[in-house]
Amino acid sequence: MQTREIRLERYPDGLPTSDHFNLVSVDLPEPQDGEVLVRNRFMSVDPYMRGRMREGNPYFSPFALGVALDGGCVGEVIASNHPDFEVGDAVTGFYGWREHFVTSGSEVTHVDPDLAPLSTYLGTLGMPGMTAYVGLLDIGRPEPGQTVFVSAASGAVGSIVGQIARIKGCRVVGSAGSDEKVAWLCDEAGFDAAFNYKSAGDLAAELDRHCPDGIDVYFDNVGGAHLEAAIDRMNFHGRIALCGMIAQYNATKTSSGPANLMLAVGMRLTLQGFIVSDYEHRREAFRADMAAWIGAGQIKWRETVIQGLENAPVAFTGLFRGDNIGKMVVEL
Amino acid sequence: MQTREIRLERYPDGLPTSDHFNLVSVDLPEPQDGEVLVRNRFMSVDPYMRGRMREGNPYFSPFALGVALDGGCVGEVIASNHPDFEVGDAVTGFYGWREHFVTSGSEVTHVDPDLAPLSTYLGTLGMPGMTAYVGLLDIGRPEPGQTVFVSAASGAVGSIVGQIARIKGCRVVGSAGSDEKVAWLCDEAGFDAAFNYKSAGDLAAELDRHCPDGIDVYFDNVGGAHLEAAIDRMNFHGRIALCGMIAQYNATKTSSGPANLMLAVGMRLTLQGFIVSDYEHRREAFRADMAAWIGAGQIKWRETVIQGLENAPVAFTGLFRGDNIGKMVVEL
Repeated sequence: MQTREIRLERYPDGLPTSDHFNLVSVDLPEPQDGEVLVRNRFMSVDPYMRGRMREGNPYFSPFALGVALDGGCVGEVIASNHPDFEVGDAVTGFYGWREHFVTSGSEVTHVDPDLAPLSTYLGTLGMPGMTAYVGLLDIGRPEPGQTVFVSAASGAVGSIVGQIARIKGCRVVGSAGSDEKVAWLCDEAGFDAAFNYKSAGDLAAELDRHCPDGIDVYFDNVGGAHLEAAIDRMNFHGRIALCGMIAQYNATKTSSGPANLMLAVGMRLTLQGFIVSDYEHRREAFRADMAAWIGAGQIKWRETVIQGLENAPVAFTGLFRGDNIGKMVVEL
Repeated sequence: MQTREIRLERYPDGLPTSDHFNLVSVDLPEPQDGEVLVRNRFMSVDPYMRGRMREGNPYFSPFALGVALDGGCVGEVIASNHPDFEVGDAVTGFYGWREHFVTSGSEVTHVDPDLAPLSTYLGTLGMPGMTAYVGLLDIGRPEPGQTVFVSAASGAVGSIVGQIARIKGCRVVGSAGSDEKVAWLCDEAGFDAAFNYKSAGDLAAELDRHCPDGIDVYFDNVGGAHLEAAIDRMNFHGRIALCGMIAQYNATKTSSGPANLMLAVGMRLTLQGFIVSDYEHRREAFRADMAAWIGAGQIKWRETVIQGLENAPVAFTGLFRGDNIGKMVVEL
C-alpha cells in the first residue's frame, strides 16, 4: 500500500515557502504484531513547529531533513494487530504530515468522538487546550476578580486561555489581528474586551482603556511590543506566562527585548516560560475539567480547516500571517 | 540639642551630584515618654535609594524634598524614656542620613555587638544580607552541584549570595568590576571563579569558560548585558532572581531589554523580581542561619567605610562608580 507524506527538504531562513517542503508517495509497511494501521483524518499545524525547522535549538529536536515531518494527528484505525484497538476506532498520535501510518498500539491513544468532533483533539481537547490550561492555571495562577490579558487571543491557545479565565471569575482582555477575530472574542467567546492591535496602533492606549485596574496575569503568545506594553501595566506580584513569541519565530535578525524589564524588580513580577510537555501530571485534570466545561457549554471554539495534505505547508505558514481563527487544522 | 542631617533638595536626572543634597543643622526634640534618643554610629547608602530619588515610581515612595533622607542606621541609645532600652544599648532603625534621632522605642531594634561589629547590621546581618538570603534561597532555589552566577559579586548583596550558595553545595561564579574585587572573591570569599567584566570585555566568553555546565541560577544585580549573556547560558528550568539593575538606575534614556528573552520559553526559565521587604516571614530564619554561619567562620565580608555625614552623598554616588568592595557605609 502506498501513502503520501510531506518532508522538510531544507531549513528555512525566515518564513518557509513551498520550496522547503516536498510531497512524496511512499510504501507503507504491513502492520505487525502489536501494531495498528491508521488513516489520518486531521493533522495539526502549530507555531511551535517553526522552532523545529532550525538546527541548534537546545530545547527542540529539529525536524530531520528528507523524511516526513511529524506533529499531532487524529484518525481512524483501518487495520489492527493490537488487542486494544479495533477497526473504526478513533485515535490520536504524533504522526502528522502523512495520510496513513503504521505504529505500535502504544503510540496512539483512543479519543471519544461523542464528546466532540475529531479535530477538537488537535485543539481545545488537545495540546493547545492543555497549553492554555496549565499556562493559565499553573503559571498565571489568576484569582477571581483579577484582570487577565492574553495576546493572539483568537488563536487555538489564546481563545481557551480567555475562556478558562472567565470561568475562574476573571476580567479577560484579548488582543487579536482583525475585526472579525475581535468580534468573535467579544460576541461568542465571552471576553470582557478585545481589540484589533493592527488597526488600533497604540497598544498602550488600548491596554489602558481595557485594563483600568492594571493586569494581574499576562499570557504572552507573541512577545515583542505586546510584552513590553503589558509589563508597563502589570500589578504588584503579577505573573507573565511566556508561552511563545510568534512575532519572532521567523525573524532573521535579532530584535530587542522589553526595555522596561527593570519594572519586574519593584513590581515583583514573575516571567515564566513553559512547555506543555512538562505537565503530563496535569493531563487527567485537564481532560476532566475541559470535558465538563465543554459539556456545560462554557467553552466555545472555532477552527480554520484547510483541505488536503498538499495544502499543509500553506496552512502552516498561514499561522504566521494570522490566516486562522482558532485552531488551524488540515483535513486529509 | 542640635544635630546635623542631609536633605534631598531636588530630584536628580542621571547620577546625583553634591548640588542635589544639603547638609543642615536642626534642633532635636527631647525624648518623650516611650521614646529614645539615639546617636547614629553608622548609616547605610544603598543602590535602591536611587529609585526613591524620582517621582512616579509606582512601587517606591519617593524621598520627600527638603527634609532628611532616610535609610538604615545603627547607633547607640544616649537617652531613653522607654522601658526596653537603656543608655548604651546598640540599636538599628531606619533613621539614616542624620547624626542623632528621637523616635518611639517601637521604631528601633536591639542588635548584638558581640556577634559582629555594629556596621555589620547594615550589611551582612542587615537588609543586604537578608536580600541575598531570600533572593538566593526563595527565588533562586539552588540545588547542590548546580552552578550559581552572580553579578556585582563583590557588593554587599552579591558577596553574600555567592557564599550562601557555596554553603549550599553549589559551584559559584561571580563578575565584578576590578581585579582587586576578583581577587577578594576568589581568595577570601571562596568563589569557585570570578572575572573582571570591565577588563575581560567578552562577557559571553568569560561565562562559557567559567560555567562549562551552564547556569542554573543567575542572581542579577545589574541587568543589561549581564542579564542577556546569562539568559543565553541558562540550563533547563533555570531561575533568574531579579534583584536590581544598577546599570540602569541612573540611565537618562531607555535601554533595550534582553534580545534573547524568547529562550525563556523553550528553556523553561523563570525570571522573578523581588523586594526584600516582602519576606519579613523569613527574618528569623535569616538571623539564625546567618548568625550560625558567621559563628562558624563560613561567611566573610568586607566594608568600604566613608567617614563623616558630610561625605554621605559621595559615598552614595560611589556605589554607581563601583568605589566599594562589600558594603558601603558611612561612619558618623
